[in-house]
Amino acid sequence: MTSTSEPLALGVDIGGSKIAAGVVAADGTIVDEIRRPTPGADVTQTADAIIGVARDLMSRHSVGVVGIGAAGWINSDRSTVVFSPHLAWRGEPLRESLTTSLDVPVYVDNDANATAWAEYRFGAAQGSRVALCVTLGTGIGGGIIADGQIFRGAFGLAGEWGHMRVVPGGRRCACGNRGCWEQYASGRALARDARDVAETSPVTAQGLLAVVDGVPSALTGPLVTQAAAANDPTAMEIVNDAGHWLGQGIADICAILDPDIVVVGGGVAEVGSLILDPARAAFGHALTGRGFRPEPPIVGARLGSAAGLVGAADLARSSL
Amino acid sequence: MTSTSEPLALGVDIGGSKIAAGVVAADGTIVDEIRRPTPGADVTQTADAIIGVARDLMSRHSVGVVGIGAAGWINSDRSTVVFSPHLAWRGEPLRESLTTSLDVPVYVDNDANATAWAEYRFGAAQGSRVALCVTLGTGIGGGIIADGQIFRGAFGLAGEWGHMRVVPGGRRCACGNRGCWEQYASGRALARDARDVAETSPVTAQGLLAVVDGVPSALTGPLVTQAAAANDPTAMEIVNDAGHWLGQGIADICAILDPDIVVVGGGVAEVGSLILDPARAAFGHALTGRGFRPEPPIVGARLGSAAGLVGAADLARSSL
Amino acid sequence: MTSTSEPLALGVDIGGSKIAAGVVAADGTIVDEIRRPTPGADVTQTADAIIGVARDLMSRHSVGVVGIGAAGWINSDRSTVVFSPHLAWRGEPLRESLTTSLDVPVYVDNDANATAWAEYRFGAAQGSRVALCVTLGTGIGGGIIADGQIFRGAFGLAGEWGHMRVVPGGRRCACGNRGCWEQYASGRALARDARDVAETSPVTAQGLLAVVDGVPSALTGPLVTQAAAANDPTAMEIVNDAGHWLGQGIADICAILDPDIVVVGGGVAEVGSLILDPARAAFGHALTGRGFRPEPPIVGARLGSAAGLVGAADLARSSL
Amino acid sequence: MTSTSEPLALGVDIGGSKIAAGVVAADGTIVDEIRRPTPGADVTQTADAIIGVARDLMSRHSVGVVGIGAAGWINSDRSTVVFSPHLAWRGEPLRESLTTSLDVPVYVDNDANATAWAEYRFGAAQGSRVALCVTLGTGIGGGIIADGQIFRGAFGLAGEWGHMRVVPGGRRCACGNRGCWEQYASGRALARDARDVAETSPVTAQGLLAVVDGVPSALTGPLVTQAAAANDPTAMEIVNDAGHWLGQGIADICAILDPDIVVVGGGVAEVGSLILDPARAAFGHALTGRGFRPEPPIVGARLGSAAGLVGAADLARSSL
Repeated sequence: MTSTSEPLALGVDIGGSKIAAGVVAADGTIVDEIRRPTPGADVTQTADAIIGVARDLMSRHSVGVVGIGAAGWINSDRSTVVFSPHLAWRGEPLRESLTTSLDVPVYVDNDANATAWAEYRFGAAQGSRVALCVTLGTGIGGGIIADGQIFRGAFGLAGEWGHMRVVPGGRRCACGNRGCWEQYASGRALARDARDVAETSPVTAQGLLAVVDGVPSALTGPLVTQAAAANDPTAMEIVNDAGHWLGQGIADICAILDPDIVVVGGGVAEVGSLILDPARAAFGHALTGRGFRPEPPIVGARLGSAAGLVGAADLARSSL
Repeated sequence: MTSTSEPLALGVDIGGSKIAAGVVAADGTIVDEIRRPTPGADVTQTADAIIGVARDLMSRHSVGVVGIGAAGWINSDRSTVVFSPHLAWRGEPLRESLTTSLDVPVYVDNDANATAWAEYRFGAAQGSRVALCVTLGTGIGGGIIADGQIFRGAFGLAGEWGHMRVVPGGRRCACGNRGCWEQYASGRALARDARDVAETSPVTAQGLLAVVDGVPSALTGPLVTQAAAANDPTAMEIVNDAGHWLGQGIADICAILDPDIVVVGGGVAEVGSLILDPARAAFGHALTGRGFRPEPPIVGARLGSAAGLVGAADLARSSL
Repeated sequence: MTSTSEPLALGVDIGGSKIAAGVVAADGTIVDEIRRPTPGADVTQTADAIIGVARDLMSRHSVGVVGIGAAGWINSDRSTVVFSPHLAWRGEPLRESLTTSLDVPVYVDNDANATAWAEYRFGAAQGSRVALCVTLGTGIGGGIIADGQIFRGAFGLAGEWGHMRVVPGGRRCACGNRGCWEQYASGRALARDARDVAETSPVTAQGLLAVVDGVPSALTGPLVTQAAAANDPTAMEIVNDAGHWLGQGIADICAILDPDIVVVGGGVAEVGSLILDPARAAFGHALTGRGFRPEPPIVGARLGSAAGLVGAADLARSSL
Repeated sequence: MTSTSEPLALGVDIGGSKIAAGVVAADGTIVDEIRRPTPGADVTQTADAIIGVARDLMSRHSVGVVGIGAAGWINSDRSTVVFSPHLAWRGEPLRESLTTSLDVPVYVDNDANATAWAEYRFGAAQGSRVALCVTLGTGIGGGIIADGQIFRGAFGLAGEWGHMRVVPGGRRCACGNRGCWEQYASGRALARDARDVAETSPVTAQGLLAVVDGVPSALTGPLVTQAAAANDPTAMEIVNDAGHWLGQGIADICAILDPDIVVVGGGVAEVGSLILDPARAAFGHALTGRGFRPEPPIVGARLGSAAGLVGAADLARSSL
């Protein structure tokens, strides 16, 4: 067991497919880390898996507080997962049950908020007055940092810009609406576009199809970004289209929130300039009042896939 | 000259066509009020007009502070009008020049922010944690109140949701973009739709054309709302369409900001349920996560056309 | 009175604003011609005006047959104007009344059919097996020539492609629908776009506004094409946009009709390559099966504004 | 071997998945019929399969002429398959090779033309002056009958309305374009919509998913129409949406061709009123000039899946 002058915080990032847990020091350094698949279909199993990784790390480090970042809507006192699109939680009092099991204070946050916080505290958004963090995963998540705090809205649900409508009557979304932004600029959007090309123009999509043994439905967002990074022209075009939609959507949000920086994170953002360059170009044509106002830079996230757990840990520590 | 235990504040609301100035007590009551046309084409004339009404009212009341609400982008220290769409100001240091002339502290705010503040302090948004105020005038303005303060963004330009894009490749906007929300749900949108009907289907638009001696280009937003209020079926349909776009746009903004109330003000909102009912219906079908989250009510503003000056006065007072 | 070996035909082209009448020889040559304004508001006045110009020309030439080209829907036995958008005719038995008055056989045709026929017989579509003639006037008219005959449809109304929908929920059309092709690629479309720019971005439209003393509603299609021909950049951009829509629509019609030539006529087409070049470019990207099929050339009409009367005369002669 | 006073014709309908061949009498009666899967990947195999079924039937009946209906673009002298989307033919001189093998005259036609012809001669379009036949299979095919003849266009490619663009920037099509009609109203459209719902809202799509063991990519057009016929509400909604697009597209084509009847055939049309009723409703709102013109009825095809072979046989007989 390590010993430090100030207590360590434990961050746990729970996504639809993996749990990433880490012990985080006050300066954002990850002292120790564990990753496991998420047993998401069952509420008890998910909670047990969290407790398992937490106890494992807590047995090796002096942890004073635990922060959870979860893909879902968290109520405003940061105790309950109201709804999670990828997990079985519905009104789950996660904070209470985990506090009892782990015997330290626990705080629950939205994973996109945790990511935004990590970038604000230790990453690309340091020193910002109003920062937006757009997370491109399967969908699009969002976190807003204003005056050194997460802007949570009245009920804890702010930042769900993945579901603003960008095309009237457009593509169906899992939320029940049509035309949501995340259907045009997320990992799911890449997969959808790639399957579409593969089904309608197999010749054009031959590079992508080769990766999945000719089965269009097996194409995923990560496969498209990997193919784009390897210079597959169709994958690059698909990523470029997503980048265009990304930049337009950021311009719309900036009209509302007027940030001084926009950080783009999440797995899809790891292709870097392939998606950020078209996003910047579209943003430059779409921001209202351009030329008469300061324009926030659009930058890639710095903390990569660990941002969620680092942010969750630091948010928990700062709540003590 | 009146005398009160606490100082009175003077509020001045400067729009493209009129100046409304009033002496406002601490409880939001308007003690005295003057309205004049705006001499907008010339910077010096506009400033002189403001000074004129202010001195007039200050000669009759003991005013301790002056607040200006101006249609334009104000910098974040509330001293300078960076840009105004309807007035000649470009980088105008309004606070400094008026402070010198009036010999009391002066604060400058965006008029939509002033309106939102008035509704929060004395009107429909009292007690709200996160309130949005959507102002339907010629365009669409916006103010955000969060945790008892105006959310201004990093550079003072937050709330410009009139320019989020709601239709790709849609109607041209004065901001240089296409498809901006205010082209579908503002007074200008009503005028545009009415002229369109009048030019393409004069028979359908005969009620509207009768008001303007058969000249489609003479149709304005206020004429359409008046005709709708008088049960002209074509005008009612046009207002209904605008209401639908209004509700959809509010749903988009709520996905981002998660407010507990949305106040709709401005001249167009004075038709009340004719536009608010379709807005609520569209909002009810468009809010992401509906059924799993608290839904903010959409309500009409309470302070009417005096909201701007009341809010400007109160903001100034609260800055002392 | 002239004397020829074969009888001359008289053609009368009746538009919303003018009557053009001419005596036409068998080779399409115009022997004599008269143009007058149309007294369109009254059925009797319009008929009297036609009779006037016809008698005038028939007093000087030996005319054996009269052909009328009218802007309207003509029934399939070419006797009655079912409906005219610009004239007062509703079920007008024009053939019978004119035959009685003029004492020679009279045939009535749609003006776009007459124009197409003229181009097929004496102009750009000679020798074609299937020719389309797209007429860009205030709206968009159309004529189809197949195997040496006008394709009229079952009821005489074929070729009304100006009213196929090209944008769901798009611009209102006088026909009562939204998104009709003619709202994007006709003279009216040019006027609408120009007024739109003028109202939203007066600076961008200053060249156009100069022509109409600053009154946006005074802008018309012909003024826009004239400004484009004089290199006004905004007018050129508007014409270019219309050309793009033109080419896309032609590609849609070619998917259905598979012509070997497309002739573009009407007043708007007189700007020539300014609208035809973007139309060809868009067509080249939009024709289904391009690369696997013969592509019809898109060419300008050759007979100019006389095509209607020439075609009407020749159709009448060929009906003897 | 049968014996009749007039020679029998053999019709062969070659689709992407099946060959249907039949011996057809002069009154359209099918005397004998064979169906086999299509070995489509190889040109020689496909031809051999056709020859096989033909010889089989010709050994039992006195056949004087053979008509082939093929899913592909046929040149205008009805000898060569220029291109087939589902078969390997590219410039295949089918007529010549089959005439040699079968020793009777052979004619090749597009399968949608053959279907239209059958409906005109023996089915729902008898007596029509201008009939349109819209075939809803995997894609949308089309045939036009005018004045007792197939309207083939200048190069034999008329009727490809499945590829007119109905949504700018819409869904990708196998033809390389976006927004083609067949992406919204064909069997492929049903499958696409069903997969979309299944992937985004599994609960809504549970009835459909039950049929395919929970695998969205296994959903096909026929499965959707079967589920709709069995009252699955989601399938019914999807078919209803397709019907709406169907009616709108028919209205667009009617603006161009002015038919007196529209026959809707193909596998998707077998759901009958589930798709025809919304199509009629949409058509009734979309036909330009409605109220001022005769409106063609939209009716289901009468000959079902045998229409293609019956039409091919009769077209061949009428060419003798």
